[in-house]
Amino acid sequence: MILVRRLLGDVLRQQRLSQGRTLRDVSAEARVSLGYISEIERGQKEASSECLGAICSALDLPLSVVMSEVSGELAREEAALARLTSLPTPALSNVRADVTNVAA
Amino acid sequence: MILVRRLLGDVLRQQRLSQGRTLRDVSAEARVSLGYISEIERGQKEASSECLGAICSALDLPLSVVMSEVSGELAREEAALARLTSLPTPALSNVRADVTNVAA
Repeated sequence: MILVRRLLGDVLRQQRLSQGRTLRDVSAEARVSLGYISEIERGQKEASSECLGAICSALDLPLSVVMSEVSGELAREEAALARLTSLPTPALSNVRADVTNVAA
Repeated sequence: MILVRRLLGDVLRQQRLSQGRTLRDVSAEARVSLGYISEIERGQKEASSECLGAICSALDLPLSVVMSEVSGELAREEAALARLTSLPTPALSNVRADVTNVAA
């Protein structure tokens, strides 16, 4: 299952790094604990809506932009997953035939 | 502050209703308690990533589509908020002048 919190964490970290800012700096401005932001960025904790709003505000980023990036990443992963599950797999009858050949 | 959970709840409820499905039906298919889904739809509880994935799967909706709709709603609310905060407000000096006139 694709987890939104992982992709959201990736987007927030990329945005922070592209601004050359530290976790400590964003944590202080957003008034969110450094440990919590760090876990959110690593996709280990869900961000509450209030916390997400505060982080986006500290990064001077509209929530809509962050969610649009998350949506784009989701679409890419969904497409990759669809390609993966539609790959042809060898039929069991063919596998059995190969084993028979090897045994012979 | 605009809260993502409120807009996410709106999108999920609209999608469910457009499919003519009940909370009970989606709850059973997603294996998420009816009370929890109801609170998510009303924007009263944050949906965990696992729960959101299960609800979207039960609604046969890609997560990317739901998040894209949420992003669109966020953009509309952000624009409305920006218009609201940029409205001209009467200067304090003018208000004082009006009060003086009334008193006179």
